[in-house]
Amino acid sequence: MRLHEIPTPALVVDLLGMERNIKRMADFYAGACKLRPHFKAHKTPEIARRQLAAGNCTGLTCATIGEAELVVADRLTDDILIANEVLGPGKAARVAALAKQVDIKVAVDSEAGLADLAQAASAAGVEIGVLVDVYVGLPRCGILPGEPAVALAKRVHETSGLRLCGLMGYEGHVVGLEDRGERETKAAQAMEKLLDTARLTREAGLPCAIVSAGGTGTYDITGGMEGITEVQAGSYVLMDTAYAKLDIPFEKAMWLLETVLSRPRPELCVGDGGLKACAVDHGMPDVKDIEGASVLFLSDEHATIRLPAESPLAPGDRIELWPGHIDPTINAHDVLYAVEGNEVAGIWPVSARGYREQRSHVSS
Amino acid sequence: MRLHEIPTPALVVDLLGMERNIKRMADFYAGACKLRPHFKAHKTPEIARRQLAAGNCTGLTCATIGEAELVVADRLTDDILIANEVLGPGKAARVAALAKQVDIKVAVDSEAGLADLAQAASAAGVEIGVLVDVYVGLPRCGILPGEPAVALAKRVHETSGLRLCGLMGYEGHVVGLEDRGERETKAAQAMEKLLDTARLTREAGLPCAIVSAGGTGTYDITGGMEGITEVQAGSYVLMDTAYAKLDIPFEKAMWLLETVLSRPRPELCVGDGGLKACAVDHGMPDVKDIEGASVLFLSDEHATIRLPAESPLAPGDRIELWPGHIDPTINAHDVLYAVEGNEVAGIWPVSARGYREQRSHVSS
Repeated sequence: MRLHEIPTPALVVDLLGMERNIKRMADFYAGACKLRPHFKAHKTPEIARRQLAAGNCTGLTCATIGEAELVVADRLTDDILIANEVLGPGKAARVAALAKQVDIKVAVDSEAGLADLAQAASAAGVEIGVLVDVYVGLPRCGILPGEPAVALAKRVHETSGLRLCGLMGYEGHVVGLEDRGERETKAAQAMEKLLDTARLTREAGLPCAIVSAGGTGTYDITGGMEGITEVQAGSYVLMDTAYAKLDIPFEKAMWLLETVLSRPRPELCVGDGGLKACAVDHGMPDVKDIEGASVLFLSDEHATIRLPAESPLAPGDRIELWPGHIDPTINAHDVLYAVEGNEVAGIWPVSARGYREQRSHVSS
Repeated sequence: MRLHEIPTPALVVDLLGMERNIKRMADFYAGACKLRPHFKAHKTPEIARRQLAAGNCTGLTCATIGEAELVVADRLTDDILIANEVLGPGKAARVAALAKQVDIKVAVDSEAGLADLAQAASAAGVEIGVLVDVYVGLPRCGILPGEPAVALAKRVHETSGLRLCGLMGYEGHVVGLEDRGERETKAAQAMEKLLDTARLTREAGLPCAIVSAGGTGTYDITGGMEGITEVQAGSYVLMDTAYAKLDIPFEKAMWLLETVLSRPRPELCVGDGGLKACAVDHGMPDVKDIEGASVLFLSDEHATIRLPAESPLAPGDRIELWPGHIDPTINAHDVLYAVEGNEVAGIWPVSARGYREQRSHVSS
């Protein structure tokens, strides 16, 4: 298949650009701190295999149990961190089932989360790894740093079926800050909370081999701090317009390919990909390679695009958009088309798209 | 299965509420103007079957060829309108393949779109129905009303393999206006363009049996105008917070069920569904049944929710959110859980989710 034969809308990966991103990131982690690539960014085994093959990785990070189940089924790695709390019907039991096959670690920030996992581990006769999730400034999950976190770590350590592996704390409120100085300052403040808690944990005689944090925007800031053992970066591999605003050495390597449906007026064209092909939580996508063009709005299956009146673009031509946020954008697609120049080098299933527990009800 | 056993995040349909919506809408179209429910809203055969069974429908509206292919494969109806232009590799040929099995009509607003369809129809030895898509004020597809539209209709009528069926014009810039008076005035202005063009088309001796328009927000305005033969409403069946602001007699009948992962502080809780479970192009979802609660932001797999400090909500409890826009929200899920009270009455595949042409590359 060639580029011009791809049915639209479709996500196209620049294979060589992606490989450059993977190598740059892997090379950075040659030291003590390692990379644990976040699988949620792309949910695509073909990409995860390349990230792991580039070296300097501890394993993979996942956001959901469904992603972890796919990682295990596809034998991508035997070291998985679900960097999220797992609660709700059947969830802990599914983690316990995975613990029979691989080293799986999950985040815990409450007594309820701890109890749920412990019961499932006991029922399955397995041990589940735990990182205590510490609040470092992002208003989301995470127990308060210092004494509360250490007390929970102690409870984990004393609970049969659970294995305390260390701490995690995600500075999600920092990773997108465009000013490098501000990003450094706020990352340092956030990580001080995590590293202090790690020190207190060890002083309490508890194991704390893993201190996991960071993302694409802080890969070399948090990733350069003594005591941080691994960084959970994901978006670097394909990038998006939000992360591209930062001064980080990764290139945008995926775009949304569309076909022009209409050129109703000289200053307007309409593409065939909209809200069901591209997430807009980080704003409208940018138009690639057309000076002065911009996306006015997306409908379910349309992109209404302002064009320079002199543009020759006509119905049937192609137009390319840079997504603002790759994670939910990729989750809307079943495959990625990897291209080298004008050749499609691979059609990669987004195998962990959606919620795995829902798929069992769908015939193929 | 019971409600409390549903794995989260998940979309839950209030079966009786949905059926009330379906009946109310079908009853409205007992007169000359009929309903052509828009399949894109839910992409779910179990819902489309109920809409068609309620009567007063001409058939179904689809936004993509993949949806139409699913409608044909599932034998939902033999009268389909793809209310969109179709261009790009393989698209016209797929329409032609469907034309062998059902009465399929597509929108055309350009010579290029016409030529593409005509060639495919000729190659397949079929006739494809065409509605000329007329611009009525929404900056998207659509040829200018009046002479340009009539000239294109004439070209369609004279082209072998194409069958001119009439016109369509979507007043998408009007359907969401909250003020009823403004909605009525602007819908009338938009439909005047379409109805004038229909008159000119007939005066030119061209067939124009179908004049298709409208949506949920104008179902009884556009749907009450003489000369409009059918309305393409979709969202009414399950509704969302955007449409619920309007004075229309349909009830919100679908919510996003989440499990509380964390209650890190009295004024905050975190649910396990985020950007990959709920579209935010119409703003954050609303919190159902908790006075004073609101969603602060969504991450990929989290909803950070402000809670009244006195709320007893704890990790492991459920929380429910009303989506702002159902179409892209449903497209993120593989199934809908239809409930009656606390019982799950059905688990319905969102069979037309995503892009069908991508699925052929994914093993089940």
